[in-house]
Amino acid sequence: MKLSMAAELAVRGIIVLASRPAEKPTPLDELCRLRKLPRDYMTRIFSLLSRAHLVTAVRGKGGGYQLARPANEITLLEVIEAVEGPLAINLCQHNPPQCQEPNCRVRPVWEDLQKKIRSALGSKTLDELVCDVQ
Amino acid sequence: MKLSMAAELAVRGIIVLASRPAEKPTPLDELCRLRKLPRDYMTRIFSLLSRAHLVTAVRGKGGGYQLARPANEITLLEVIEAVEGPLAINLCQHNPPQCQEPNCRVRPVWEDLQKKIRSALGSKTLDELVCDVQ
Repeated sequence: MKLSMAAELAVRGIIVLASRPAEKPTPLDELCRLRKLPRDYMTRIFSLLSRAHLVTAVRGKGGGYQLARPANEITLLEVIEAVEGPLAINLCQHNPPQCQEPNCRVRPVWEDLQKKIRSALGSKTLDELVCDVQ
Repeated sequence: MKLSMAAELAVRGIIVLASRPAEKPTPLDELCRLRKLPRDYMTRIFSLLSRAHLVTAVRGKGGGYQLARPANEITLLEVIEAVEGPLAINLCQHNPPQCQEPNCRVRPVWEDLQKKIRSALGSKTLDELVCDVQ
């Protein structure tokens, strides 16, 4: 039971944006340097975050990335789902399910656990997670 | 945030044992046939379950696998940890942590979530999950 590395890095990266002035875009190079994040991989991750409308790319001089919405309106769950796809902790929790064994008594356990995880991640917004970055 | 395929299959496999008479070992071939589980992969998974003292291999004619303890004394968490290793939902939740960023405000979120997952999985025992197998 594990967060993907893509989601782990997406959370770290987007928190840097949430920790800086909203009106000032952060170049990806600078963001990676601040948190020792792998540059190539972060290009792909920020492209996914942008596609999910969580961050916006600002082109040109003084450009970079900024949050697409206020930090208190973006949840950890949204960040994770932007890179992992819809939360599905195992085969039967996909939509549609990838396992539909009839009368399975483990399925309600996964369902309940998935709800708990969604609730925990969906109730945390980026403004609560800002860190000390220059 | 996802269960590994190894853990998913381990849970399915061990539940077959929990669903059959405790004193009658189940050959791995039969177990795989009952739940359409991949034979080669299950050999490795049952070897891990055996190493974790959750199942016992009975050799010879009429041999196979049986639970090493009563089903109500084996939790889902133990089954998952037997194949995935100690539960660590992300880098900072390993022991020792693989990320120790000072003053990180996401870490308590992961810590709390990991506790919730441990608690949910640690409170479910195999006797609650038995299914209808021949």
